Amino acid sequence: MKTIRLTIEYDGTAYVGWQIQANGTAVQQVLEEALTKILGHAVRITSSGRTDAGVHARGMVAHFRTERELPMSAYREGLNCLLPADIAVRTAVEAADDFHARFDARGKWYRYSLLTAPVRSPLAARFSWYVPRPLDEERMRQGAEMLVGRHDFAAFRTSGCDALTTVREMRSVELVREGELLHIDVRGTAFLRNMVRIMAGTLVEIGWGKLSLDELAGLLRGEPGLRPGRTAPPQGLCLMEVRYE
Amino acid sequence: MKTIRLTIEYDGTAYVGWQIQANGTAVQQVLEEALTKILGHAVRITSSGRTDAGVHARGMVAHFRTERELPMSAYREGLNCLLPADIAVRTAVEAADDFHARFDARGKWYRYSLLTAPVRSPLAARFSWYVPRPLDEERMRQGAEMLVGRHDFAAFRTSGCDALTTVREMRSVELVREGELLHIDVRGTAFLRNMVRIMAGTLVEIGWGKLSLDELAGLLRGEPGLRPGRTAPPQGLCLMEVRYE
Repeated sequence: MKTIRLTIEYDGTAYVGWQIQANGTAVQQVLEEALTKILGHAVRITSSGRTDAGVHARGMVAHFRTERELPMSAYREGLNCLLPADIAVRTAVEAADDFHARFDARGKWYRYSLLTAPVRSPLAARFSWYVPRPLDEERMRQGAEMLVGRHDFAAFRTSGCDALTTVREMRSVELVREGELLHIDVRGTAFLRNMVRIMAGTLVEIGWGKLSLDELAGLLRGEPGLRPGRTAPPQGLCLMEVRYE
Repeated sequence: MKTIRLTIEYDGTAYVGWQIQANGTAVQQVLEEALTKILGHAVRITSSGRTDAGVHARGMVAHFRTERELPMSAYREGLNCLLPADIAVRTAVEAADDFHARFDARGKWYRYSLLTAPVRSPLAARFSWYVPRPLDEERMRQGAEMLVGRHDFAAFRTSGCDALTTVREMRSVELVREGELLHIDVRGTAFLRNMVRIMAGTLVEIGWGKLSLDELAGLLRGEPGLRPGRTAPPQGLCLMEVRYE
């Protein structure tokens, strides 16, 4: 039995998300179908986690197990021939027998991209959230720093999130300016459902002056009566990297 | 009578090109329909030139004339509300009465983007040509320099090109490296049909060693029996800017 670890990039626009669902095509499903053609047997792929509908990935990690003895190029070049243009396997390597993409993950890097420009940009629309109203970037940077560390992020999750504990640790939350794009780079050990999109929406509302840094502090302390910013739209989010030991 | 000059950005993936044609939707047509709604009368938009099916633009320039006295914001903000996500008006300004987007154009900047990486990239696929085979960038740079200046570019046009003369002047042809992307920036006074895509294909074949610099020199001298490189695919091309006095 071999365990194969894949790094996968995808443009999530056309998909209902990573995970197989009844209401449309999932990235996982397209990958499993292509892999089944190569292996000649049905296969289940296990990923480091889900991504929502319309969210992209540059470095999603997943694994599967097989009795087949194929060269690694069969997985990378072979899969990339079978996969559609919006999904590709970047690397395929043999992993330890007991490697598990989800349980062994030690951290993730998400990037949320804002387009701050006087007009919307068709060339950037697919991979960013267009935010025309001026942002106070200095205040956003202060807010980003407040998110770093170990906090109860109960306020920063969607109602459908069923995590047992809502304490998470953010290693860094950084704003990176690239022309008209403002990236919010979030690195943490683990994340709640929609957490990065709610963080992004909260930082944007802080940038607008709609939410204060005091309110953000209150949200992180779990004070009642406070609400975070809106959930930023999915197309601005990209899972950049999953970290392992 | 007012003359309005527009700068337009579009993701050309879904269109048959700039110019109205029988076989699908053109960017010009979508713009004219939106503009007709704002003006309340039929309108013809004249651009600096065409772009082919699937080619993008960051700075296409076009003009139209109208008797209406509307504020410029009606054209920019108004049109951007009516236009689909893959087309936007970046600027709308009143121009001289006799301004003509095509006849007054003094030069254009095109960018052709290659993706040079071990595997194809779904996040870059829409706006680049994936070239996995290694390229000799130094030789490509030498070839790019040879294209600069005034030459007969008869070999660098598609069979459907009906230009009266094929002499054109390239002000600069530069290779710009940006991570896994290699941009070919071409600035010239005017262009033949498919010229930049054939230039890009020729430089790539020079990079592969399939065409020599001597052959490129021969092509520019009009020597018989020589053929340029392939026409690079449309999605790598973007009209960045049109220059006026």
